[in-house]
Amino acid sequence: MTHSIALIGTGLMGGPMARRLLGAGMPLKVWNRDAGKSAPLAALGAAVCATPAEAVAGAGHVITMLTDGGAVGEALFERGVASAMGPGATLIDMSSIKPSEARAHAERLAETGIAHLDAPVSGGTRGAEAGTLAIMVGGDAAVFEAALSVFAPMGRATRVGPTGAGQLSKLANQAIVAIAIGAVAEATLLVREGGGDLAAFRSALAGGFADSTILQQHGRRMQEMDFAPGGRSSVQLKDLDNVLAEAGLIGVTLPLVQAVRDRYVRMIETHDGGDLDHSALFLDLLALNGRDA
Amino acid sequence: MTHSIALIGTGLMGGPMARRLLGAGMPLKVWNRDAGKSAPLAALGAAVCATPAEAVAGAGHVITMLTDGGAVGEALFERGVASAMGPGATLIDMSSIKPSEARAHAERLAETGIAHLDAPVSGGTRGAEAGTLAIMVGGDAAVFEAALSVFAPMGRATRVGPTGAGQLSKLANQAIVAIAIGAVAEATLLVREGGGDLAAFRSALAGGFADSTILQQHGRRMQEMDFAPGGRSSVQLKDLDNVLAEAGLIGVTLPLVQAVRDRYVRMIETHDGGDLDHSALFLDLLALNGRDA
Repeated sequence: MTHSIALIGTGLMGGPMARRLLGAGMPLKVWNRDAGKSAPLAALGAAVCATPAEAVAGAGHVITMLTDGGAVGEALFERGVASAMGPGATLIDMSSIKPSEARAHAERLAETGIAHLDAPVSGGTRGAEAGTLAIMVGGDAAVFEAALSVFAPMGRATRVGPTGAGQLSKLANQAIVAIAIGAVAEATLLVREGGGDLAAFRSALAGGFADSTILQQHGRRMQEMDFAPGGRSSVQLKDLDNVLAEAGLIGVTLPLVQAVRDRYVRMIETHDGGDLDHSALFLDLLALNGRDA
Repeated sequence: MTHSIALIGTGLMGGPMARRLLGAGMPLKVWNRDAGKSAPLAALGAAVCATPAEAVAGAGHVITMLTDGGAVGEALFERGVASAMGPGATLIDMSSIKPSEARAHAERLAETGIAHLDAPVSGGTRGAEAGTLAIMVGGDAAVFEAALSVFAPMGRATRVGPTGAGQLSKLANQAIVAIAIGAVAEATLLVREGGGDLAAFRSALAGGFADSTILQQHGRRMQEMDFAPGGRSSVQLKDLDNVLAEAGLIGVTLPLVQAVRDRYVRMIETHDGGDLDHSALFLDLLALNGRDA
């Protein structure tokens, strides 16, 4: 087994992650379903492969960065990734998928001696380009330690528990973001309708208990009614549905997540808002108050 | 009119604020209902007065830092503050009271030529001691500018709009804090019951979109089930009731504020929780999930 790395999925996130790994001098083989997206990486030193199996053969660490659990399962078990990986290799799945899917993948890979880390990220394309992603990792501690040098060029990796805990943390992250958007929407409406200066309001709160990136960035979008994404509402809704599905499996009720989820459904239906930034939840609050934009 | 300053109310917050003003070399006269609380300020150079009227006579700026709107109104109009202030002087009310009360006080003071700024703060006793309070100011821009040197030793003052806008911003601040606590409670329960490591979870999210002081500080309290205040739940509930009252006056509905307010009511009733830290909202989520502590 060599110490080369393979990366499956060189799209919006996987592309800049590949560039970070190459920039750190790591030998990298890549594959993407749409080959046009991986071709530019060849000039940076990547081996662009014709099949997933070719990319992962002999790699010590295989990274997947795909759209959902179905795409990851397909790559692993239908397109030959799992069978082409050698025993002792590690699959690092950096896609955002359900914790239950991550656990199922890990169990099936273990049958052929392949280790698994679920390692979804927060920070978006900007974080991927800058190598400042927050990487939430679930899996065996020793396997995590052995992968630290792979994570390093991409961001800050933290082991948050056993297999599935990375995806669970990502879901909890998304739950906080959605409810925080709901909170900032209500504060924004209150100050706006009460005659306050919204920009000065956000400035006054900076650094205090109520402050957050959501207040500063999404609050400004609400003030300016500028809902170009950013993070799409359709993706936020998918995340919240995954949060509630996982909560159901665990057996817990999350009333604020449920309330915000229902309002994203209504906003997307009423405003054809799936492609709007997730701060467009503000539109639902305006409609609820008869202040349709 | 001299440029001396008077401060009415030298309690938990007013005491350290007085020390900051004295430390900056400002001539200060103080009065407190419980005289024992203002006596130690004499050693620092304050003129400790026997009546509110004596304290404010001749002062260019009069600061009030009292428990609620009733106490401010009583000091102003029943204990002689308003009638002892000279025309052209400015009342700076740094208490947290209702926006409607602030507007009523300002109108009544204007009848005798006294200017008014509502200037509630965020940052707690620690911020008062360090002179790092966030001060949210409503009122006339020129009056605000003329008061900047008074605010400077206490913290960072931002004018957020006309009279009442400071109190409105404080309420919006408190609404965000309460909903954020609700969000962190649900994320904490999800990660805990799903087998994740809560300390690592918070560490992984640090600096990202979901991060906040509430996540780091109140999330830790929930993990450790340590609800010693901090900010009391009874005060948080009072703030949320004031948010909803003001929203009613303005004519807007705030569903997340309403939901969190109802849960504070239930938590305080069920757990005798008024004196617990406001992060104890977590107890209500546990009870809702049959996981009573």
